[in-house]
Amino acid sequence: MSSNRLIYLPLGGAGEIGMNCYVYGYGPRNKERFILIDLGVTFPEAEGSPGVDLILPDISWLEQRADRLDAIFITHAHEDHVGAVGHLLSRLNAPVYARPFTANIARRKMEEQGGDLDQLIIANVWPEQVQAGPFKVGFLPISHSIPESSSMVIDTPEGRIIHTGDFKLDETPVVGEPFDPALWADVSKDGIKALVCDSTNIFSQHKGRSEATVGPEITKLVAGAKGMVVATTFASNIARLKTIAEAGNKAGRSVVLLGRAMRRMVEAGQQSGVLKGFPSVVSPEDASQLPRENLLLLVTGSQGERRAASASLSRGKYLGLEMKKGDLFLFSSKTIPGNERGVLRIINNFSEMGVDIVDDSSNVYHVSGHANRPDIEALHDIVKPQIVIPMHGEHRHLREHVMIAEAKGIKGVIATNGTMIDLTGKSPKVVDHVEAGRIYLDGKVQIGAMDGVVRDRIRMAMNGHVLATLVIDDEDDVLGEAWVETMGLAETGISNAPLVDILEAGISQFLGRADHRTLSDDDKLEEAMRRVIRQTSMDEIGKKPEVTVVVSRLVAQ
Amino acid sequence: MSSNRLIYLPLGGAGEIGMNCYVYGYGPRNKERFILIDLGVTFPEAEGSPGVDLILPDISWLEQRADRLDAIFITHAHEDHVGAVGHLLSRLNAPVYARPFTANIARRKMEEQGGDLDQLIIANVWPEQVQAGPFKVGFLPISHSIPESSSMVIDTPEGRIIHTGDFKLDETPVVGEPFDPALWADVSKDGIKALVCDSTNIFSQHKGRSEATVGPEITKLVAGAKGMVVATTFASNIARLKTIAEAGNKAGRSVVLLGRAMRRMVEAGQQSGVLKGFPSVVSPEDASQLPRENLLLLVTGSQGERRAASASLSRGKYLGLEMKKGDLFLFSSKTIPGNERGVLRIINNFSEMGVDIVDDSSNVYHVSGHANRPDIEALHDIVKPQIVIPMHGEHRHLREHVMIAEAKGIKGVIATNGTMIDLTGKSPKVVDHVEAGRIYLDGKVQIGAMDGVVRDRIRMAMNGHVLATLVIDDEDDVLGEAWVETMGLAETGISNAPLVDILEAGISQFLGRADHRTLSDDDKLEEAMRRVIRQTSMDEIGKKPEVTVVVSRLVAQ
Repeated sequence: MSSNRLIYLPLGGAGEIGMNCYVYGYGPRNKERFILIDLGVTFPEAEGSPGVDLILPDISWLEQRADRLDAIFITHAHEDHVGAVGHLLSRLNAPVYARPFTANIARRKMEEQGGDLDQLIIANVWPEQVQAGPFKVGFLPISHSIPESSSMVIDTPEGRIIHTGDFKLDETPVVGEPFDPALWADVSKDGIKALVCDSTNIFSQHKGRSEATVGPEITKLVAGAKGMVVATTFASNIARLKTIAEAGNKAGRSVVLLGRAMRRMVEAGQQSGVLKGFPSVVSPEDASQLPRENLLLLVTGSQGERRAASASLSRGKYLGLEMKKGDLFLFSSKTIPGNERGVLRIINNFSEMGVDIVDDSSNVYHVSGHANRPDIEALHDIVKPQIVIPMHGEHRHLREHVMIAEAKGIKGVIATNGTMIDLTGKSPKVVDHVEAGRIYLDGKVQIGAMDGVVRDRIRMAMNGHVLATLVIDDEDDVLGEAWVETMGLAETGISNAPLVDILEAGISQFLGRADHRTLSDDDKLEEAMRRVIRQTSMDEIGKKPEVTVVVSRLVAQ
Repeated sequence: MSSNRLIYLPLGGAGEIGMNCYVYGYGPRNKERFILIDLGVTFPEAEGSPGVDLILPDISWLEQRADRLDAIFITHAHEDHVGAVGHLLSRLNAPVYARPFTANIARRKMEEQGGDLDQLIIANVWPEQVQAGPFKVGFLPISHSIPESSSMVIDTPEGRIIHTGDFKLDETPVVGEPFDPALWADVSKDGIKALVCDSTNIFSQHKGRSEATVGPEITKLVAGAKGMVVATTFASNIARLKTIAEAGNKAGRSVVLLGRAMRRMVEAGQQSGVLKGFPSVVSPEDASQLPRENLLLLVTGSQGERRAASASLSRGKYLGLEMKKGDLFLFSSKTIPGNERGVLRIINNFSEMGVDIVDDSSNVYHVSGHANRPDIEALHDIVKPQIVIPMHGEHRHLREHVMIAEAKGIKGVIATNGTMIDLTGKSPKVVDHVEAGRIYLDGKVQIGAMDGVVRDRIRMAMNGHVLATLVIDDEDDVLGEAWVETMGLAETGISNAPLVDILEAGISQFLGRADHRTLSDDDKLEEAMRRVIRQTSMDEIGKKPEVTVVVSRLVAQ
């Protein structure tokens, strides 16, 4: 009897949408060899992670075992799958396999962070396979909203696993490979041990629509437009960019790319060969000399990002271009939950300018890149796996996906980040829970989400910050008066005197009756002053602020 | 020729959804007599107004003219129409007219803030009218998602205006008065000068559904439930509360009200006589002794509010009650844009518990309280106003509403907060723009949204806060070393030494070469130290923090 085991361990992406990072292992317990699928990021938001630049998966568990990591595979070039490669690869030190377009994007990220480009290996498509320790891994084409998306076919001594990555079933995806049911049936024909499967749209009941359905509608819309046309979508949706640009071309409009990601993605598509026949573009400078009815702008910022081109245009002139009454702005995109406020801010700004806004509410100018429930079920039916392990979803998605699988007799397993599943033998079991949190990239520094740094920021934002300083001489007597500064607090409270005066008076009163034991002990003194400040503040303005006390002690010279 | 003029001036609610506050005036220029319709609030959010308790309209313009204000009318008891009465009435000092249910809610708010209850006058319904200066004002019943909602019929020397307040066209509203087209036609028969009209759902293309359609569906759902049933909706939607409670009753379940607003609204409904026949309720304590399959909980927190009952239950035991696998949680509500994250957090927590969640996605367990586009057009057709002034909408809603009105030959006017419209004569004109911002209720204090207090909080949250203190003797020499404390910043940066040490070393270096002129001038010294700290921090951790410097100068004793 072999003591080898096959394990699955998500470190990101399971229990959330974003930050994908999945470990597979095979070998004797605690001596398994590993591969990693995807190394993505997720994005901070003002409420939960203010000031943070990017959120990375906590890979410490894998880092401690990096000598047993044989390879990293990237399914596609979306940020939540490739975005952490630049930041984390040096800690894992393993070859990274990706198809040409994905590798183009990964390379840029590694270059930005000074990574070792020799570790990046361009992979060929299925039926080629990469040997990585006990695994043989192949890139099986699947359709999605970005070119060259691939599912990973992972051959293990325990059988074949298919890790879908993000996918939809699109037989006419405009750019990139169509979904090929015959190929998938062939790959699955000898039995699939586990299908690790995208769950994003599990709650969407209707069959998904093809990327090709969008073109005629956008073409019609642009043909009928009178003023300038501006369209936004995810820059990585190369097929959509092509559709929109061609619609502009057909209507006799020059195409302008606005926003760094927009130019970068078109460039990556052309360099890697997936994007052919994209209309020629004009620069914003040249465009500003052309009649506005002859322009189509493709711009970044479909999610309302403040610094992207959409938001910039909604605030006024941007690179010499400006929206006006009678222009058309098209959101060829869906607003991700949580981004509504930013998107609506832009829409209302444009409304004030008299710009006509078209969004996805009519369901014809955008299609999702993810498989809906009937499509997911169709894939189950083609692959016929023994086990379905849902991923790329919040808990509610994973749970729904398992219920659907089990309803047709497929064993389903919910495994959220940090849950290690032993897939050896007939029935999967949870064998471990490992630390799998989030790391914040904050300026140049990586900090743990639980380190308290961001919690302190949120507290200052909620409660304001008071600082009090005090000088004490070498005989433990107070020199002069305490000095108070506030930040983020009302200047005056109910007594109508300046808040700092009220606080200083409160401290003075406290110091007047403080005994020597308190004055001689920094910790005691600071704690007591903090209490006085919080209580005085509560009485005066109805808030208990964060407080920092600095006691400077003069020493006899 | 009379020099009197009729003016309309929104101070809140026009260009936003929430914080309703509309002034009407009549008389000689700058001597007009005023009435005010509604005095509502809007709610803060973590991104834009962290730490703020409530947002009130800036009524300074009206306060300065309070001697000319004859009356305040409240259309209905939603927070965005009545919520500021407690906080702002003392600054306006005018009688407040409201129908019994609305008055019940208004009274509680005035009591909380120590207001003069004699100013609250219970109004009778149309055809009675209140004489208020040059205006005669009547409460014309209209259906909405709260009882006794009324449109204001405002008779002016220039003709009749109808101010709809919030409305839908519901002829079977379960609780409260049905919409009565014949009555509305009669009120409008002699010509309506202006219809000031709710625009919330102007983008919803289908006809609105009646509150009565929800009952059978909820009854069926509850009848089929196996475990405990918990339902949430806006507490003020008395009709829905009744529907849900009755569904519980029919299924043999005892009804429990969880959350202060839930108990308060049922009480207000019963006290004011609008709610009759509500099933008897049991306390949470008693409920915890009953079998869970015999319970139906009506709970607050349909918008994911962290402190409400829904969120509390999603975190574990609450008042002795706890959700378990097989229980049902019903969102009989729609998530307001911006609240998605909080709602999804609750749903995912419940998913982890194995609770089945039913939300509005099937469109049968909730109906909106606002008129959709066809309903708004139907009201236009009944009232046949000369002018439509859209309100209760963001700019995009107001613009769309005007386009719809103008398409059928009705003059439309976009007037956002602070825009004064002269309605005298045939064609309305913009005659003034007045200051109409927002006031933050922050603890016990009201602060202006533009005062910089909240901006400072956001900055601390984004950038962290460094404080540096320094003691200087009476000869302008530095005593000891500078002391640095940080809050909301990484403890170590790229050099792996503590950030505070790096900052203190940077300051020391600066002080070592600072000349006497700098050391003797507090402003210069503080500014220079701030610069050193920001730059050192940028080098070390890649962030420029907020900085507070305190220089303590010892004086010769």
